[in-house]
Amino acid sequence: MTPALLAALDGIEVSTAPADLTTYGRDWTKVDVPAPGAIAFPRSTVEVCAILRACSAAGVAVVPSGGRTGLAGGAVARHGELVLSLERMRRIEPVDLLGGTVRVQAGAITAAVHAHCAPHGLTWPVDFASKGSSQIGGNIATNAGGVKVIRYGLTRQWVLGLEVVLIDGTVLDLDHALEKDNTGVDLRQLFIGSEGTLGVITAATLKLAPLPRRLDVMVFAVADLAAVLALFREVRRSGLTLAAYEFFTQRCLDRLLSHRKLRTPFDRPSDCYVLVELEDADGPEVEAWVGTIFERGLAVDGVLAQGPTQAAALWALREGISESLSATGLPHKNDIALPVAALEAFCAELDAVFSERYPGWEICLFGHIGDGNLHVNVMKPDAVSKADFLAQAHDADATMFELVRRHHGSISAEHGIGLYKRDFLSYRRSPAELAVMRALKRALDPRGLLNPGKVLSETGG
Amino acid sequence: MTPALLAALDGIEVSTAPADLTTYGRDWTKVDVPAPGAIAFPRSTVEVCAILRACSAAGVAVVPSGGRTGLAGGAVARHGELVLSLERMRRIEPVDLLGGTVRVQAGAITAAVHAHCAPHGLTWPVDFASKGSSQIGGNIATNAGGVKVIRYGLTRQWVLGLEVVLIDGTVLDLDHALEKDNTGVDLRQLFIGSEGTLGVITAATLKLAPLPRRLDVMVFAVADLAAVLALFREVRRSGLTLAAYEFFTQRCLDRLLSHRKLRTPFDRPSDCYVLVELEDADGPEVEAWVGTIFERGLAVDGVLAQGPTQAAALWALREGISESLSATGLPHKNDIALPVAALEAFCAELDAVFSERYPGWEICLFGHIGDGNLHVNVMKPDAVSKADFLAQAHDADATMFELVRRHHGSISAEHGIGLYKRDFLSYRRSPAELAVMRALKRALDPRGLLNPGKVLSETGG
Repeated sequence: MTPALLAALDGIEVSTAPADLTTYGRDWTKVDVPAPGAIAFPRSTVEVCAILRACSAAGVAVVPSGGRTGLAGGAVARHGELVLSLERMRRIEPVDLLGGTVRVQAGAITAAVHAHCAPHGLTWPVDFASKGSSQIGGNIATNAGGVKVIRYGLTRQWVLGLEVVLIDGTVLDLDHALEKDNTGVDLRQLFIGSEGTLGVITAATLKLAPLPRRLDVMVFAVADLAAVLALFREVRRSGLTLAAYEFFTQRCLDRLLSHRKLRTPFDRPSDCYVLVELEDADGPEVEAWVGTIFERGLAVDGVLAQGPTQAAALWALREGISESLSATGLPHKNDIALPVAALEAFCAELDAVFSERYPGWEICLFGHIGDGNLHVNVMKPDAVSKADFLAQAHDADATMFELVRRHHGSISAEHGIGLYKRDFLSYRRSPAELAVMRALKRALDPRGLLNPGKVLSETGG
Repeated sequence: MTPALLAALDGIEVSTAPADLTTYGRDWTKVDVPAPGAIAFPRSTVEVCAILRACSAAGVAVVPSGGRTGLAGGAVARHGELVLSLERMRRIEPVDLLGGTVRVQAGAITAAVHAHCAPHGLTWPVDFASKGSSQIGGNIATNAGGVKVIRYGLTRQWVLGLEVVLIDGTVLDLDHALEKDNTGVDLRQLFIGSEGTLGVITAATLKLAPLPRRLDVMVFAVADLAAVLALFREVRRSGLTLAAYEFFTQRCLDRLLSHRKLRTPFDRPSDCYVLVELEDADGPEVEAWVGTIFERGLAVDGVLAQGPTQAAALWALREGISESLSATGLPHKNDIALPVAALEAFCAELDAVFSERYPGWEICLFGHIGDGNLHVNVMKPDAVSKADFLAQAHDADATMFELVRRHHGSISAEHGIGLYKRDFLSYRRSPAELAVMRALKRALDPRGLLNPGKVLSETGG
């Protein structure tokens, strides 16, 4: 931070307090040592423009910063960057009931938007475990996924208007509140999922969905992954509306039960579990359908929630896993996607490779399996040092990503690339795609000042 | 077409027959005189690459060409360009039932894809009147809208994988069949809706939706636009699932009845009509709901289809309008979108302006009003020459687009910009947005050889 830059930011709230530098320089990954130069807390789009113009003039890199719940290091600042926190910009405007939209500033908390819309029978259907901390701007910048993608799609589908500030301070006020607008390339799409590398999102008009009239939640115990997929085919065939189809293994459940001091709702352990949420089915229809699942041997055990409290308890079995893995050990996390049709073959191959090359490693699998999305958590064995484990895990990533590539999958389904998947990007993106991505970066941020080193390396490698 | 270029295309089907030049040089607009240099009919992506490389080397402009059902001149060739027709590339692969996807070549006809998927209880939910001629590649290149947007969103939401060839012959094989893939900027989105100016779409993996189990179609006669919107609010409030909410005026109906020699299903004329399609409601629920509509005075008359034949007849009242307007006069077409909440004020202002400045003009309004999308057709008065009418209509466009801008609407909801809305693009896109659009064009097609003059003018103006 040069004195000239700090002088240019006069009137804008800026902190260089060590505690702030530590807090705002990292995300949930806690791998790198945070070392930003300063944290700016603009209160308006005008202030965001002033900050970006000043940083452009000074040649200082900027890291846009939301709720910092990311798992790929996209919001990490470790080289003296200015962190631009949106957390003072959290206004939520009244819901437009006729249009079914709501305008929010980027720093609005995801759960606060849900709470704001629910009394009108509406919701922004982007939902995941960190919604109490994550911000809308970050949700959009990472094209967040979560537990409702199978029903509603990704964040990308729920953004109508987008206000973005480019590195030179230019404001793009894109698309307002229109559902339909075919007037050239859709510029919003450039910024959705770009992880803050092309512009800073300052506000958005969100598209809302009606809240479901009724949800039925159940968890089935099934024998193996093949059974998870057979049950999925059956739900698809039934014509019932799936709101969620989530998967976890006994290893995940064991760590969650131990961490949360809970008792299993099942009579005996099973290799795999599936959480099914059905929307707007009627009670007798659900009961009858569950009956046929057991009659046909598609599940070995099951619990059907009777009311919202039990539904929340069942959801906690799935949504608490990530926290419980971190609380009971050191997980090395991956977030991959496969075509659903390739999942079973992929998992068998992964199991074989890991058993041979890393015997004794505990692999905890869970995720949004209806979307083909698996969270692969490898737990550090007690006998292995942290440094050795991380080095071996890095090798293991390369092995797994090679398998992912062979099955036309993705190395990051929803967490993004950030810092920690960057070196593996070529497992998913071809040289031609990387060249286009670099051309876009040059076109919008020619000096590479916006979130440098995220997604793409700075050296062009 | 230089002899060198034609020699480079040896082995690829190329036509310079005058009839082909005329047919493949125009779309449904029939305003410009078509004058392409040649038409190429590649049979594979490899041939598309060869054509683009050869045209790049020769500095010859290329117009990608699908079903040519566009209404904005996006596929028009009038300056010796090479037209690259995708119509020989129409393979449709077997449906992936587990993934709910189908892979098609760009030239596959939209209705043929529907017919291919229907026996599996699935559909690609992009649907509009020209689906019997339009091609998937063109649907994607224009981000097609249509009659099901209110239920399913735009084409953009139903494209998983996309194969695109850049002007230098580079193939981008984007995203395969994955629902979730957050690995940097989503390059598919650059090409969806870019009207062939950034790359040539050669194949796609389409996401499919389950066919609705039941559809109920009805047409209501209502007093005016305010009543159209009041009824819309009521449907939204009811919690019923809307598959379509379409609007047309008595003037549209008159021309359709006259052209098709049909009798109105209503006892007396009404200013406005609404077609409502409900999904998966049960019969008694629909009957009861229709009863409340009349009890509450939300409609003055109505017809509820009893079975698929009557449903198709009601749909024809709406979907036949465009054809009937062209058959019974000379319409000047516009396709605008407004926030739904702004529609009533906008229409009142439009009516006032037109009545004052263009008295006696017949304005036929119809469209996907649930999306805020209005097709505004001005009919040429008998007493005015075609040339005078087109000149006056151009002035009228500027007047209307100024109103559209004031209400934060779009000058092209679904037809795109092409040639004929290009001069008005600044009514929707700010100078900053236009600068970004030009930067993208330079990044992907630096010499401006792909569909030149479409969307953006070639001079930078």
